[in-house]
Amino acid sequence: MTDTANETLSVVVEREIPHAPEKIWRALTQPHLIEEWLMKTDFQPRLGHRFSLRGEWGGVLDCEVLAIEPNRTLSYTWNFAHDDPAFDLKSVVTFTLTPKGAGTHLRMEQAGFRPEQTQAIGGARHGWQQFLAKLEQVAGQGD
Amino acid sequence: MTDTANETLSVVVEREIPHAPEKIWRALTQPHLIEEWLMKTDFQPRLGHRFSLRGEWGGVLDCEVLAIEPNRTLSYTWNFAHDDPAFDLKSVVTFTLTPKGAGTHLRMEQAGFRPEQTQAIGGARHGWQQFLAKLEQVAGQGD
Repeated sequence: MTDTANETLSVVVEREIPHAPEKIWRALTQPHLIEEWLMKTDFQPRLGHRFSLRGEWGGVLDCEVLAIEPNRTLSYTWNFAHDDPAFDLKSVVTFTLTPKGAGTHLRMEQAGFRPEQTQAIGGARHGWQQFLAKLEQVAGQGD
Repeated sequence: MTDTANETLSVVVEREIPHAPEKIWRALTQPHLIEEWLMKTDFQPRLGHRFSLRGEWGGVLDCEVLAIEPNRTLSYTWNFAHDDPAFDLKSVVTFTLTPKGAGTHLRMEQAGFRPEQTQAIGGARHGWQQFLAKLEQVAGQGD
């Protein structure tokens, strides 16, 4: 785009997971499993559902389901309101699952960072790597 | 107090740590160590210093140093502003170190929860247990 004032950046983290998409989908959409790899939540797999993700230290994200296609795609807002523009965040997280052999290629894109939000971008990159590593463990439970 | 409208609750987590208070103090007050067990921060061990604690998922706490006595006591605000009263939090975290044998008794009190903030209280209790377990590891580095 030519209007750089509206330019945003995305963090993309991808991971090959040795479990079928159905197992990953379960970990992405069942609240008691989401809590194990991400945060406590009142998520429901329903378009337009508003929910929160709550960190144990008191922080909370405001979210809304934007797209949902079972075993393939899940997208929701990931918003954090703060007076300081360095921390204020309106972003969209999209998970895309693609079968690959006996497992799944999982792609996570968090879109909407402003270019000057370097701390938030760095934190998200590191955070999502950790989150997805835990998600892999949760998805494999019961195997 | 008689005015129950102003009643607040505290979460207290205590831990016996097999390291001298000086080592725990270092982990409580050096930003690169705080980052290892708690969150990224621009903390400085100076009365009245305002700083933030930043979660990797984009959340941020607003803090201010209220009391500081090297190797003994550190207290700071731990505030999170949110439109939803269930999440809005104005609290004070106080660490108290007491020498015990070759180690230290560490007491953490987070004061200021409203009685109806049951989710935040439960999250803090669980979160601080995890944080202090990591703090013990960080304090012991280099031994």
